[in-house]
Amino acid sequence: MPKARTTPIYTTPQDAAAAFYQAFEARDLDAMMATWADDEEVVCVHPGGPRLIGFEAIRAAWEALFSSDTRLRFRLESPVAIDTVGLAVQSVTEHVFLADGSSRGIAVATNIFMRTPIGWRMVCHHASPAPPVPAAAPAGPLH
Amino acid sequence: MPKARTTPIYTTPQDAAAAFYQAFEARDLDAMMATWADDEEVVCVHPGGPRLIGFEAIRAAWEALFSSDTRLRFRLESPVAIDTVGLAVQSVTEHVFLADGSSRGIAVATNIFMRTPIGWRMVCHHASPAPPVPAAAPAGPLH
Repeated sequence: MPKARTTPIYTTPQDAAAAFYQAFEARDLDAMMATWADDEEVVCVHPGGPRLIGFEAIRAAWEALFSSDTRLRFRLESPVAIDTVGLAVQSVTEHVFLADGSSRGIAVATNIFMRTPIGWRMVCHHASPAPPVPAAAPAGPLH
Repeated sequence: MPKARTTPIYTTPQDAAAAFYQAFEARDLDAMMATWADDEEVVCVHPGGPRLIGFEAIRAAWEALFSSDTRLRFRLESPVAIDTVGLAVQSVTEHVFLADGSSRGIAVATNIFMRTPIGWRMVCHHASPAPPVPAAAPAGPLH
């Protein structure tokens, strides 16, 4: 019988962000999707991956990601918060580690949360690989 | 004598976004920075580049970028808009071209605008390289 869970209500963007990374580390698909707004206009970009649009596409990608054997740990650094009444942005550096403590790399993440009738939910997660050390050049090859 | 300009007031997030890409294509630093909020809590990530925080750091990076000989053109596709009263998100695929029309690549951009007393201004631009074709795997190597 599937485990019955009460849908959590995150009363702040910070609570939703913490729950997002906890679910990511735990590879808990239900907990992960409980941090997302159930909407067609939500966006997720994993590092180097395509832009995923809509709750179902995003859910399928997390399901595939969590089906691998790789367990990740995150250390978040230098958060920048931009908060308004209805929408909140968390920009953060993600230090990504494997379960054995070895470094997997560094990503930059832009996380955006919306206040919904059932609490704050993620509407955008955009993560991309960051240079390992502060770069002299202000940009990579694309721009 | 420097050209005197009136600071533009963007009455919608869409106007600010259009001005951002126009300034990018024109390599016009003053016009570019007029689309940004003059704040310490603003964030810019160029594809593959470090996370830049604060108006001055972001200005310096655009100045360096615009000092190169490379002129870029953008074709924006599949925009997703998340709008609230005070903050608005534009998620978009950027097809980047050189002046001769050849493709430079594809980026995913998350652009976030805030309503300020002087109109809508950018508070976050996060761009990262996108896979050239829809990828089978939901994620790159980092996550």
